[in-house]
Amino acid sequence: MAIGPDFPKFPTSKSQPWQSLGPGKEVGKMVGGAEKWVMMVTAQTPTNIAVIKYWGKRDESLILPVNDSISVTLDPDHLCTTTTVAVSPSFDRDRMWLNGKEISLSGGRYQNCLREIRSRASDVEDEENGIKIPRKDWDKLHLHIASYNNFPTAAGLASSAAGFACLVFSLAKLMNVKEDQSKLSAIARQGSGSACRSLYGGFVKWIKGRDEDGRDSLAVQLADEKHWDDLFIIIAVVSSRQKETSSTTGMRETVETSLLLKHRAKEIVPKRILQMEEAIKNRDFTSFAQLACADSNQFHAVCLDTSPPIFYMNDTSHRIISIAEKWNRSEGMPQVAYTFDAGPNAVLIARDRKAATLLLQRLLFYFPPSSATDLNSYVLGDKSILKDAGIEGIIDVEGLPPPPEIKDSIPTQKYKGDVSYFICTRPGRGPVLLSDKSLALLNPQNGLPK
Amino acid sequence: MAIGPDFPKFPTSKSQPWQSLGPGKEVGKMVGGAEKWVMMVTAQTPTNIAVIKYWGKRDESLILPVNDSISVTLDPDHLCTTTTVAVSPSFDRDRMWLNGKEISLSGGRYQNCLREIRSRASDVEDEENGIKIPRKDWDKLHLHIASYNNFPTAAGLASSAAGFACLVFSLAKLMNVKEDQSKLSAIARQGSGSACRSLYGGFVKWIKGRDEDGRDSLAVQLADEKHWDDLFIIIAVVSSRQKETSSTTGMRETVETSLLLKHRAKEIVPKRILQMEEAIKNRDFTSFAQLACADSNQFHAVCLDTSPPIFYMNDTSHRIISIAEKWNRSEGMPQVAYTFDAGPNAVLIARDRKAATLLLQRLLFYFPPSSATDLNSYVLGDKSILKDAGIEGIIDVEGLPPPPEIKDSIPTQKYKGDVSYFICTRPGRGPVLLSDKSLALLNPQNGLPK
Repeated sequence: MAIGPDFPKFPTSKSQPWQSLGPGKEVGKMVGGAEKWVMMVTAQTPTNIAVIKYWGKRDESLILPVNDSISVTLDPDHLCTTTTVAVSPSFDRDRMWLNGKEISLSGGRYQNCLREIRSRASDVEDEENGIKIPRKDWDKLHLHIASYNNFPTAAGLASSAAGFACLVFSLAKLMNVKEDQSKLSAIARQGSGSACRSLYGGFVKWIKGRDEDGRDSLAVQLADEKHWDDLFIIIAVVSSRQKETSSTTGMRETVETSLLLKHRAKEIVPKRILQMEEAIKNRDFTSFAQLACADSNQFHAVCLDTSPPIFYMNDTSHRIISIAEKWNRSEGMPQVAYTFDAGPNAVLIARDRKAATLLLQRLLFYFPPSSATDLNSYVLGDKSILKDAGIEGIIDVEGLPPPPEIKDSIPTQKYKGDVSYFICTRPGRGPVLLSDKSLALLNPQNGLPK
Repeated sequence: MAIGPDFPKFPTSKSQPWQSLGPGKEVGKMVGGAEKWVMMVTAQTPTNIAVIKYWGKRDESLILPVNDSISVTLDPDHLCTTTTVAVSPSFDRDRMWLNGKEISLSGGRYQNCLREIRSRASDVEDEENGIKIPRKDWDKLHLHIASYNNFPTAAGLASSAAGFACLVFSLAKLMNVKEDQSKLSAIARQGSGSACRSLYGGFVKWIKGRDEDGRDSLAVQLADEKHWDDLFIIIAVVSSRQKETSSTTGMRETVETSLLLKHRAKEIVPKRILQMEEAIKNRDFTSFAQLACADSNQFHAVCLDTSPPIFYMNDTSHRIISIAEKWNRSEGMPQVAYTFDAGPNAVLIARDRKAATLLLQRLLFYFPPSSATDLNSYVLGDKSILKDAGIEGIIDVEGLPPPPEIKDSIPTQKYKGDVSYFICTRPGRGPVLLSDKSLALLNPQNGLPK
């Protein structure tokens, strides 16, 4: 298997049409060998964070949004889903394991993705192992899928976006689907709306589209991750005592009851999309930050305008915003943008590495780890920034001075334990195939989880 | 002094015009006696809570709002301002004391109210004490003002609304201003916007008006407090660690930066005002509650849509909303409406006394007093409802069972200490004069605070 970093090519397809096996007959073919082969592909797909938010569907089952959205793809080294998909004539049904636990594939979202991908399958030949699968056989062959997030699934970090993107991407490679990433994104969208934006690295726009069948509701890349590589991202995973409204339920209730959503979707977001595209194109951090913060706040405003109201941010989220706003104001220009999805976690996008260092000092000053937590499990991801911030251990956190912008406001309160941990990361690349077979999540002999 | 409960008449004015004293001469006259008299009036004015919110001015100095609002006046027995205003030729300048402490009257808001009231003064004769003040003399006579809130000023309970309403009402009585309550409300409005709604009892609408000079931006009574006397109100004064944005600053920033406010003010509120008037007229609690809750949430939504965002509600506020929403849903129709002003305190309006009893049980279950607080200082106002709720002491609070609507959600968390205290009250009457001279806050001999 060959792996390119961005648009990897998978098993070369043959142009000659192959004859399909009739129903009831054994499908797929191992040239001159036993019939119990397993063919596998493993891929890794990033998560993403919207900076112009998606909130509200115009079509629930096709997952068509009421407005365009724009996201930043996060570095898969720190936040990604790895998925292995396998096909074998020996599988008797489609099965899936998420983080090692078997889950049902009967839901409409999985079924939609599987159906759409299967309908686009092509002939596949694995010359090395002498396996041939004619296009028509994909309808009869069953799949095993194993997926793993390198971050806590329940932490509200867009695991479903990375998950469905990875499912669709890896299946497309396995089945030799010849459509481009954008077309694949329209399939991933049917699994989870924001998944379509995880088919690309860098800066991605999900165009809401106009067609009733949703074929033009897909993602396009605005710029790759190298375009604006100054940016640095710190995610604060916030401790929460509240059970949150799922985003599916939440956005349905907002569409049904908010009197502000329609105005936002029709009048406000279209202008912001153009402004955000311009800001990204020009690497204009001031505009980028103003737009991202305002749009995050407006998304939470329409949640609050829902009946019953939806609260995703909590007091800790509010405090993080205040810290960022106060600092930005004192500097005279934004050093950090904040954005919050359907939960209390803050995604903080710093102007550059230096700003991220100063930000981390502020965050650790206000939110030191609780006594039982060691720094190594409190600051995750790219820990190199800790050293820049002069922090090697808890004692350095305790010694952090109050940020200069609050020097007159006394006493300064600290909020130990209100943040579970931080993840330091950056904008990152899109999906990739993993050539290292040892990284596969399924056993190559029987197609079951390792 | 005669006192009527609602529209009290004060010192009978004489129709004959009196001669004014020229500048520099001694003003006012004690018939056949010494010149060092002090004439005083004491009044009591309620606070009010908006159920369709005022947020945003179209004119900052005249305090003209961007939309109409509707409020419920709260029973002054539990929440009111008492103000004594005194005039005497011996006073050498205007002075004011708030809760016993002298404060400056130099601010524009006080100056506007004093100027407007003085310009409408009439001849006054106190026959009993033989004092005559010709209309023209009011410009030269100085005033002493003492004001006292029967509730904590800093608790975010609309003290400025009751305060400015009481200032204007009592001065109007002292100076024999002949304009009706509505005209007075337009003066109080220039002290604090929502003060105009405290000139009436019951249910009050502040009409935003159209004139540039603000003369038609005034309050009218929709119904008096007897019209719908089933309603019962519980205020949760919520403990807060945050310093809040003042409503003056907050609404200015919302007007300047929120893209949703204009849509709310122009398209949404006008319809809600009509619906709320109808709900009040028909004592339709279901509509009343839905409108009040939705409008409170939308007000906080536009605060969140402000840049930088404004958060008035905190996690405790959110929890109170969740408790109310869950209970309302389980009953199939609203039992309680909630509304929050520019702070975390909840004002909960119960359908009737029985609903208020059930509500208080729920509130005390989730928010028991902290160990150091005794029940008597935790539930204030009309404590009679405690008995209905079967609660005579802390032990009864501890014994409260979880509300039936949450019987399946375990474990139930409690939030001891998150509420400072509750005030039980009802819709109430408008301003009244207090005839009992012992209630005056100024000494009748020297016009200084008692």
